[in-house]
Formats: sequence, structure tokens, C-alpha cells
Amino acid sequence: MTEKANHNLQVTADGRLKHLLTLNGLGKDFISHLLDRAETYLRQTGTLPARDYGLQGRTVANLFFEPSTRTRASFELAAKRMSADVLNLDVKTSSRTKGESLLDTIYTLQAMQVDVFVVRDAGAGIPEFIVNNIQPHVSVLNAGEAAVSHPTQGLLDMLTIRQHKGRLDNLKVTIIGDIGHSRVASSLYHGLSTMGENEIRFVAPPGMEPDMSLHPDATLYDNADEAVSGADVLVALRIQRERIDDPSGIPSEAEYMERYGLNSERVALAASDAIVMHPGPMNRGTEITAEVADGPQSVITQQVTNGLAVRMAVLSAVMEAAR
Amino acid sequence: MTEKANHNLQVTADGRLKHLLTLNGLGKDFISHLLDRAETYLRQTGTLPARDYGLQGRTVANLFFEPSTRTRASFELAAKRMSADVLNLDVKTSSRTKGESLLDTIYTLQAMQVDVFVVRDAGAGIPEFIVNNIQPHVSVLNAGEAAVSHPTQGLLDMLTIRQHKGRLDNLKVTIIGDIGHSRVASSLYHGLSTMGENEIRFVAPPGMEPDMSLHPDATLYDNADEAVSGADVLVALRIQRERIDDPSGIPSEAEYMERYGLNSERVALAASDAIVMHPGPMNRGTEITAEVADGPQSVITQQVTNGLAVRMAVLSAVMEAAR
Amino acid sequence: MTEKANHNLQVTADGRLKHLLTLNGLGKDFISHLLDRAETYLRQTGTLPARDYGLQGRTVANLFFEPSTRTRASFELAAKRMSADVLNLDVKTSSRTKGESLLDTIYTLQAMQVDVFVVRDAGAGIPEFIVNNIQPHVSVLNAGEAAVSHPTQGLLDMLTIRQHKGRLDNLKVTIIGDIGHSRVASSLYHGLSTMGENEIRFVAPPGMEPDMSLHPDATLYDNADEAVSGADVLVALRIQRERIDDPSGIPSEAEYMERYGLNSERVALAASDAIVMHPGPMNRGTEITAEVADGPQSVITQQVTNGLAVRMAVLSAVMEAAR
Repeated sequence: MTEKANHNLQVTADGRLKHLLTLNGLGKDFISHLLDRAETYLRQTGTLPARDYGLQGRTVANLFFEPSTRTRASFELAAKRMSADVLNLDVKTSSRTKGESLLDTIYTLQAMQVDVFVVRDAGAGIPEFIVNNIQPHVSVLNAGEAAVSHPTQGLLDMLTIRQHKGRLDNLKVTIIGDIGHSRVASSLYHGLSTMGENEIRFVAPPGMEPDMSLHPDATLYDNADEAVSGADVLVALRIQRERIDDPSGIPSEAEYMERYGLNSERVALAASDAIVMHPGPMNRGTEITAEVADGPQSVITQQVTNGLAVRMAVLSAVMEAAR
Repeated sequence: MTEKANHNLQVTADGRLKHLLTLNGLGKDFISHLLDRAETYLRQTGTLPARDYGLQGRTVANLFFEPSTRTRASFELAAKRMSADVLNLDVKTSSRTKGESLLDTIYTLQAMQVDVFVVRDAGAGIPEFIVNNIQPHVSVLNAGEAAVSHPTQGLLDMLTIRQHKGRLDNLKVTIIGDIGHSRVASSLYHGLSTMGENEIRFVAPPGMEPDMSLHPDATLYDNADEAVSGADVLVALRIQRERIDDPSGIPSEAEYMERYGLNSERVALAASDAIVMHPGPMNRGTEITAEVADGPQSVITQQVTNGLAVRMAVLSAVMEAAR
Repeated sequence: MTEKANHNLQVTADGRLKHLLTLNGLGKDFISHLLDRAETYLRQTGTLPARDYGLQGRTVANLFFEPSTRTRASFELAAKRMSADVLNLDVKTSSRTKGESLLDTIYTLQAMQVDVFVVRDAGAGIPEFIVNNIQPHVSVLNAGEAAVSHPTQGLLDMLTIRQHKGRLDNLKVTIIGDIGHSRVASSLYHGLSTMGENEIRFVAPPGMEPDMSLHPDATLYDNADEAVSGADVLVALRIQRERIDDPSGIPSEAEYMERYGLNSERVALAASDAIVMHPGPMNRGTEITAEVADGPQSVITQQVTNGLAVRMAVLSAVMEAAR
């Protein structure tokens, strides 16, 4: 898909967000606007969380065809705090055991007047496929699509960076790990490329390298220390074992940490005010040490808090477009 | 059970619906009244769905001992749109692994002041067994009982027929497929028999024939083309593989389609304004072609929408009886 | 842990309940106050259950790492009737399959502004471990911890006893069964020891005896008839098979009933107004006969009703402490 095609798929003629499938093609103002809107939903922990009545009477269905705790919980709480009715469906309890097609499941839920589908699927193209087969009043939010896209994760990552750096351009951002199988890296790349001139550095173990033709604005490094050097933002990724056919090439924990892990020594090579991010779930001791994960430069739990605000903002935005 | 016994089990002395176990014995006025009430909950898709506060403070427990996506989702959304608290329980997470009896589960939930049990079970007689062992303030709704009964499905089927045909008598209704293992066919049969003089035609593959002594007002056909000829309503059923002990006799997909499937040629034998129905989930290519399922005579997604309205109506009716 | 340490862990400096991990160390007035508060949430069955807005806008996460129907349902309904948003997480759908640590799950949910964690875990010390690693605004409720503690069960048991006996001292209370693996027995023991001078009698099959050094105020009997003789309260426990490594020593059903089961003959040895309790789920025919379980002295379903009220009271109490 071209950026233009993605834009047309996601944005209504009068410029409102209708679906969120990818950050690729969404536009700088659009992303800024979503981040601003997300900021309005942030509250200090210990106080009552933000609550909004924008989705009262609306129904959000979480269709998770891959297991998930954190993303599903985040979307579920976002929808509940927007006062929506929430329906959780996952593969194990679904009637796919009776052989029903994905599209018939969608048609069925749509006929029950579900307004928003939050979809996670291991198959590339599934969210777009749903968008192309759905009624005009329904919105689709991509909650993780194969190794392709995870746009709300990209938004929450950018919101976190903006909070700490005050900007989303002229940044050195280093993403380390299994980039080749990572939808998180993809979405952050598309977001950062859209927002301005950023130096995006990738470093990946052998067999986990990304297709650089899809990431023309990024630079692939061999050496993690070089890639980290002077960076403003460090993003560690976990190995997506479930997407690796032949696990024999995966480095041991100790070897991975030595060459690619974020430990204190490696983090010290970055800018002194660099922030450390991880999309979770973390494998402490493999891609990040506990010391770094819980250290003063870590903004990992803040990412989670921002995730909820981002999802509330996106739900609110698409429901405005539905009116 | 006789019709009279069924009536007494389901209807209070002052003529209110207390439980919904079967359409057999419910009475013509009763069914008409439920369909009228369901109509009040219908809204155009794209608008806010109907919402009612009739179950505010009430608790609905979905007790599904057979897997289900669509029926469970339909009851869950119906209850939520009636403002009830909803508790979902299924076999896998239940304490049946600790050996608790069904009745103790019911006693326990009843002691938690659950008001309505929505029960799906593979065993015949389970909903009635629960009714006979429950406190006076609790209602039981049958959400699918073995091959015996699925009354809310029967009601939504009739509502759909009434919307298109303007009546529920003097109709030719053809039900094709695994009637012998179908609670859907049974409930529709009982409903249509109650509502007036209808010509109910069954056609079933070998080994899937119904017990005709239970359906004295229906006619069993050998040939699908004959059964379809001139019909006002066509209902395709899926093969209930989970209820067939010896699957070796099940026809192949191609053979099934050839002899019993609803394809365009066969549908053309029916009345020109015939409607095509299916309770879902569909096996496209086996009992129905995609062309027919998505074609102009199909009312399959409308059945789903009606299902939600029917369940809201039934929940509302039994809660009135509880007061 | 000493009682003093337990007190400090659970109660704020100004004397409010912050966490509920164990009844050991909670204090007599504290327990009385919680039972009084629970009483305010009781309603007659058949009427609308109690509803409170004290948790409006708050989020309760049910983290069940052991399967449970009744306790999870009880906490879920308690939270919903307090108007909280509820998030259910269990092991099977959790991201533990991706190797995330318990603590990272807690950090993540805390960052989503979850206010209360309801935790059931097979590991001893898990609830306390969470308390020691959590933010100040979050409360932890123990919903079953190994064979160690189940404080809301202890409270509901005491509430039930108080309703029938009018007091919580000078009682003869006999607990029969697998006491060695029972958190229910432990919590009831701690509660009754705190509330006054009670004669607490244990009787357990070989291999299921409790560590009496942990229960210095109780007496261990060999013979069930002797232990039951003249008792005011009888508590039957089920065998916790999931906590017994070598099941070869477990008596047969008939042998168990003969020696330890509550049948009518054995119950007749107790005080004539003795009440019969069981925490559920029951194995009828093993530790209790159906005749006794459903008989006039049984208060088993009342325990369930009280459980909901106790959980509403505890949720309400910890949310007051959070303000």
C-alpha cells in the first residue's frame, strides 16, 4: 500500500480518523493531534483515572486472535473508561472451532451493532481486509498485525519520547533486537519518519534483520555499542520466538545480553539524558538487565500509562468520525 | 413433557413469562407479544443501539457448557444494553475440575443473587432440571439444549420471517440439512406450528433425519429440489458434527452441496420473493454458496440483529415477572 | 511474619485497612468492624442486591493464577455492585506464556491505574510480595494463597457464625478434613483466635494433619465423633487433591465418609442447634452427605451470600484508605 492509499483508508473525506491500521501515511498533523488528545486523558497515578462518556451506548469488541494480556487489558480499560460496552472474544472461545470464517464473525458482530473492532491477528493484512468488508459506521483499530504494524504502540512510544525530549524531530533513536519480526519497530519507524528529521538506528542479531527497503530512512548497524553511542532514545525489543521458524539460530541469553542487551555499560554510551524504552513483555536478563529496566532512565511503565491514554484518544477520535 | 406442562413451567399464574425453555406450549399470543416487544428494541445499524434500564442492578450469568461465540455474545450484549451486570462462566474456567455438581454451581450463583441464568448445555433436560431446583426469584433462559430446543433462535427466526412476509401463517417453510441433530429446526417447528397453518417441509441427508413423531405437522422430503419448490422461506442448517458419533456417513462437501446445498439454481426453484436463512455459523461451500449467503434474498445478518432484540425482549419480560 | 508485622503491612498509620492478606494480626475491633460493614450489604434474596457507588471510576483486577469459579465470581460481582470497572486476568490468557515475570505484570497493570489487585496464587507469600513492590495508592486483596491464608473466606465464615450464634467467643468449633492443606481452616482459626476464647477442634485424616505449632490455640482430635461431640459449629473441608503430591494415601470415598464425613448420625452428636458449614465446592458423598448439605442445619448457601457482602465491605474499606 502507498502512503496515499493508507491515508484514504484511514481518514474520512472531511479529515477525521475512521480506522487506525498503520502510522504509515497518517500525516504529521494527524499524529500530533492524536498525541495532544491522548495527553488530555493522563492523570497522576493515585488519583482517579480519566473518564469520558464519549462511547456511552457504543460497543467495542476485542477480537484477539493472538494471546495478549497487556494490549487487551489496555484496550479493555480504555473502552470502559470511555463508558463503552466491551465484548472480549478470543480464539479459544470462538466458534472458529465450528469452521466459521473470519468475515462471517465480523458480519455477525457488526449485525449486533458493534461499533469498533479492536483486532490482533498473526496474519498480515487482516485489519485492512476487515476494513474493506465492513459497514460504514464501523471502525477498525489494529492492535497488532503480524510483524507489520502496531500503530497504538507507535503512538504511545512517540508520546513518551515527546514528554521527555519535548520534540519528535532531530532525535537519535536506537532500536535494538529482533527488528525483523517486530511490528513495534515498524510503527515507531513510520511515526518518527513522519514527524521530522530523525536519525533512526537499527541493530539486530543475525536472522532478525529488517528488510531495509521498507525502512529507507533508517540505518542498520552491526555493532550495538556504535548504534547506542550518543543516542537520545533506546528501545529494546524482545525476541519474537513465536514468529521464528527455526529457533536454532537464536543466541543464548548470555550471548544475547553480551552483544545486544541493554545493560548499564551500554546505556552509558548513549546521551546522558537518554531514555530507555521497551514495549513489554520484558525478558529481564536477555534483552535488558533488571538494573536498567528499573533504573532512573527507564520510562517503561510510563509507556504503559501512555498506552491507555492513546487508546482512549483513538477510540474517542473514531467515534467522532462515526457521528 | 406435554405442551400444558411446558406452559405451566414457563408462565406464571398471572400470565407472565418466567422462564424460557422451549417454544412448545408457549402459546400464540405469548409468542406474538414477545416478537412485538423485540421489535421495540430494533434500531437502524449505524445509529446507537437500543438501551434500556430494565435490568439495572440485576445480574445475568451466562453459563455456557458448550462453546459459543455468537449466542454468548448476543446474550451478553443484550444484558449489557439492558443495563444488567453480566457474569460469564464457561466450562474451562469453572470449578467442575474440582468436581462440583451443576446444582451446587447453580445454588452458589443463586446465593450471589444472580437473577437470570442463561444456560447452554449439551445435555437434554438441563434447563428444566435447573428450573425445578431454583429459588422463586430466579429465571432460566435456554440458550441451546442438546438437539432439543433453542427458543430464542426460534423467536428470532420467526421475527425475521414476519418482517419479510408480514405473517406467520399460510407459509411454505423449507428446512434443509441436519435436522435430526438440530435444536434450531425443532424450535422453529414448534413456533411455526403454534402460530398458524404452515406447510413445514423437512429435507435431511441419510442419518440426519428427524424423528417425525416429534414433528407431526411437518412433511419429510427425500429430494431437496422438490422440498424447495415454491417455498416462501428457506432455512439451511450446518451439519452438527459434534453430535454425530460416526462421521463416516457424512457426505463430502461437494456431494452435500450437490444434493442439499442452497445454491442459486436451487434457490431459483422457490418463490421469487423467498428469503434465505441460516442460524450460523455457516460453512460456505457446503450447505450454502457464498453467492446465496451474500445475495439479495439472504436475510442472514438480519437474523443476528433480530437475535439481540429478541434476547433483550426476553430478559425484559422475565424481569417483569420477577417483580 | 509476626502478628505485629502483619498488622503494619495491612493497616495504615491512621488505622485504616489498606491490604487484606491474612486475618492473623488484624485485631478484634478491625474484624468486628469489617463484619458490621458487611452486614450493611446484605439484602434478602429476591430483592435487588445491594449497590454502592464507592468504587465508581476505580479499577479492580482479578489476577487468578489458580482456577476458580466461585471466589472469582464473588469478587467480580462485589466489584461490579460497588460500581468498579473490573478486569479479569487468568493464567491461560496471560502473557506468562511470553515469559513475563509476575512483578512486571503487576507493574504494567499498576501503570494502567488499577486500584485493587485481587490475587489468587498457589505460591505462599505471593500477595505479601506484591504488597512490598507496589505503589502507595494500590491495594492488594488475598483471594487464596497456597495453604496459607484466605482471609475473605475467614470473614464470611465468622459472619455466618455470628448471625446464628450471636457471638464469636465461647464457641466450640470443629473443623474436619484436609486441614493440613487448607487455607480456609487457617484463616478461620486466626479469626476465631482473635475474636475471643473459643474451643477450636481439628480432626484430619492421616497425612492431612495441620502443623499444630502454627495453631497453638486449637486441639487436634483423632476421632471425628469425639471432635464433633457437643460442637456449636461444624466445618467440613474438601480434600485439596491439587496440593497432595502422593494421592495413594487418600482414603476411598466410602472410607472417608465413614471416618470423617458429615452424615446425619455424626451431626446428631453436635449441639442440637449446631450449624453445618462448607467453603465449597463440595464433594457430596465424600466429606458431606447430600442430606446434611441440604438439611436444616446447613448454612452453606448463606456462606456464599455473606461472601459477597464481605468482599463488598473489604473493597469499600480499602478504597476509603486510598483517599
